[in-house]
Amino acid sequence: MVHRVKRLAILGSTGSIGRQTLEVVRAFPQRFQVVALTGGRNLTLLKAQVREFKPKLISTESGAKGERMPGASHLSMEEIAAHPDVELVVVATAGKAGLGPTLAAIRAGKTVALANKEVLVMAGEIVSAEAERWGVEILPIDSEHSAIWQCLRGEERKDIARLILTASGGPFRSRTARQLAEVTPEEALRHPTWQMGTKVTIDSATLMNKGMEIIEAHWLFGVPFDRIEVVIHHQSVIHSLVEFIDGSTKAQLSFPDMRLPIQYALTYPERWEGAFRSKVDYAKIGSFNFEAVDLTRFPCLKIAREAAVKGGTYPAVLCAADEIAVELFLMKKIGFPGIADLVARTLERHNGVSQPSLEDIMAADAWARDAARAGF
Amino acid sequence: MVHRVKRLAILGSTGSIGRQTLEVVRAFPQRFQVVALTGGRNLTLLKAQVREFKPKLISTESGAKGERMPGASHLSMEEIAAHPDVELVVVATAGKAGLGPTLAAIRAGKTVALANKEVLVMAGEIVSAEAERWGVEILPIDSEHSAIWQCLRGEERKDIARLILTASGGPFRSRTARQLAEVTPEEALRHPTWQMGTKVTIDSATLMNKGMEIIEAHWLFGVPFDRIEVVIHHQSVIHSLVEFIDGSTKAQLSFPDMRLPIQYALTYPERWEGAFRSKVDYAKIGSFNFEAVDLTRFPCLKIAREAAVKGGTYPAVLCAADEIAVELFLMKKIGFPGIADLVARTLERHNGVSQPSLEDIMAADAWARDAARAGF
Repeated sequence: MVHRVKRLAILGSTGSIGRQTLEVVRAFPQRFQVVALTGGRNLTLLKAQVREFKPKLISTESGAKGERMPGASHLSMEEIAAHPDVELVVVATAGKAGLGPTLAAIRAGKTVALANKEVLVMAGEIVSAEAERWGVEILPIDSEHSAIWQCLRGEERKDIARLILTASGGPFRSRTARQLAEVTPEEALRHPTWQMGTKVTIDSATLMNKGMEIIEAHWLFGVPFDRIEVVIHHQSVIHSLVEFIDGSTKAQLSFPDMRLPIQYALTYPERWEGAFRSKVDYAKIGSFNFEAVDLTRFPCLKIAREAAVKGGTYPAVLCAADEIAVELFLMKKIGFPGIADLVARTLERHNGVSQPSLEDIMAADAWARDAARAGF
Repeated sequence: MVHRVKRLAILGSTGSIGRQTLEVVRAFPQRFQVVALTGGRNLTLLKAQVREFKPKLISTESGAKGERMPGASHLSMEEIAAHPDVELVVVATAGKAGLGPTLAAIRAGKTVALANKEVLVMAGEIVSAEAERWGVEILPIDSEHSAIWQCLRGEERKDIARLILTASGGPFRSRTARQLAEVTPEEALRHPTWQMGTKVTIDSATLMNKGMEIIEAHWLFGVPFDRIEVVIHHQSVIHSLVEFIDGSTKAQLSFPDMRLPIQYALTYPERWEGAFRSKVDYAKIGSFNFEAVDLTRFPCLKIAREAAVKGGTYPAVLCAADEIAVELFLMKKIGFPGIADLVARTLERHNGVSQPSLEDIMAADAWARDAARAGF
C-alpha cells in the first residue's frame, strides 16, 4: 500500500512537544516529510534535528542574522506557517510565540495541529473566527482536547451536554494549604504522570493548566463555560469525557504518553498501527479514582474560570501574569501560593477590552507582564 | 420543529426489555408510533399495552386462535416483522423465539433493534450474512454492545485492536467455590446493578451471559474472538471499551439503566434530549474498579468461548443447554455450579455441523434440549 506523504512544519521542534512530534515522525519515516523546523534557544538540538530530518525551511530565534544552517532557507515562523510546501503546521511553541504563526497558517489554509495553549487562551475568539472563515481545522494535541475530539468523532456538537476534563491533580493534590506554602520549584517540577516542559509542569501543579484547558475547550468545541467541568483523576488514563444530551457519556483512554495524541493529530482522520501503543490491562490497574478539585487549595482553576467568563482581554492577562508568576516562583522570589495571588491581583487591576483586536490582546499582554512584575 | 414519526414493532413487549422500550416510547409520544406489539403468556399486560398504544397489529403466543383483542389484526411474529407499515423492529423476545422474526425483518429490509441475545449466538453467521445481503443494520440494545457501537461512531472497523466487554461480575463475584455450591435461585435472582428478566439474571450470575455477549460482539462488529476480552467492573458504569490500533481507547459510560441503550437504538443516528438522563458525578462515585474474571469459579465464560471458537452448531447447543440448565437450577434440580457442568457435558457430547443451515441449528437446539434434560 502506497501512502501519501504528509508535509509538516514543526514550530518549536526543540521543546518537549516538538521533540515528541519528531519521535512520531521517526516511527513513520515513509509517511511524513519534515518541510520545516523552528527552534528557540537550543541551537545545538535544532542543528542535530536539521541534520536528521533535512528540512527545506528553518527559523531560529536569532532569525536570518543568526547562525546559518547549510541546505535550508531561513524564514520567519509566519513565513514558514504560510509556505506553499507546508501542509500541516504543528504549533509546539510556548507562550504567545505561537499566536502569529497560527494565524498565518490559518489564513494560508493550512491544517493546524495545536499544542501551544496560549494561542486559544489569549485569542480564542479571533483564532476561531479566522479558522471558520478560512475553513481550516484546528486539531488539538493536548491529551484532554484530543480525548474530547476523539469522543466527538461521528457525533454532533449540538448533542454535547457537558465536557469533563480530567486533571491528574499534580504532585500536590493531597497537600494541605500549609504544606503548599512550603513547596519548592524542585518539587513542583517532578510531575507524577506526565513528562512535560517546565512551564506546563508548574501550571499542572497549580491547576492553572486545567483552567487554561477549560478556555481552550470552549473555543475548540463551542461549549459554554458552565458546561465544562474538571475532575481529578490521578492515574491520567481517562483523558477526558463527553456527556451527551441523551445521558450517554464517552471517554477516551490510554497510558499517559503525549506521542499518542500527537500521532492522532498527525494521522487524522486515519489511525495508524501504533508505534507507541501499550495495551492497558484494566484488571492490573485495578481502579480509576476520581475526586473533586479543592478550589481553596488550588485557586488557579477558579481564577482562570473567572477570567474565561469575563472574556475579552482577561484571558490574555491571565496567561501573561501566570507566565511572570511562574518565572518568579522558579527564581524563588515568590512561593507556590504566590502564583495564584499574583495572577489574581493582576487580573483585578486590569481594565478589560471586550471583543479585542490582536493589538488589544498584545497590549493587554504587555501591560500584564509589567503589572505582574511590579506587583510582586 | 416537526419530527418524522418512527413506526415500531415491538416483539416481546411484555418482557423486561419490551416494557422498558414502551417507557422510552411513552417519553417521546410525538416521535414514535407503535404499529405492532407481540406478547407471550402475560395476556393481561399485553391487553393493557394494546389499550394504551393502540397498535394495528398484534401477535400472541396462542396466535389467531387465542383471545381476540379489538381493533388490531392478529398476525404471526414473522408477518409483523415483515409488515409494510413497520419501519423498525425491536426484537425483545427471549430464547430462540426471536430468530425467525429477525430473519423475516431483515429480508423485508427493516432496521432491527436487537435485544434477544440468542439470535446472534445461535445463528450469527446466517443472520449477519442476511443483514449484509439485504443492506440492513442490526442495532444492538444490550448495554455492552450499544457501548461498543457508540464508541465506533465515526471510526473504521479495520482500526479496532480489541473489544473489552465489562461485566458486573454478578452477585457472586466474591464467593468461594464452596459458597457458590450453596447458591439458591432466590439469591441468584437478586442482581446488584441491573434490573433484568429471570433467565438473563441467572446468566449474569454464572457469567454465561458475558460468554454469549462475546459471540454477539463477534458477529455485530466482525472482531475475532481472540480480540474480545472481558473484565469485571462491578459498578456497571463503563459499559464496554474499544481499543484502536493506534493505542487509543474509547469507552461508553452511563448509570446502569437499560432505557438508555434502548433509546439510543430507537433514535439512532440521532441523540434525543434524555428523559432518563441522570448526571454522573465522578467525584462522588470516587472510583471505578476492575478485576480479572476467575474462570475456575465462573467456568461458563470459558465454556462459551470454546463453543464460540468451535462455531457451527456449538453456540446453538450452548444456548439450548444453558436454557435447560437454568430451568433445572430454578426448579432446584441442580445446584448453581451444575449449570456450567450440564452445559459443558452437553457440548462435549454434541457432533457439530459446520456452516449450518437454519434447519441444522434448529435440530441442534432440539437435540441439546433433550440431551441436557437427559444428562442431568
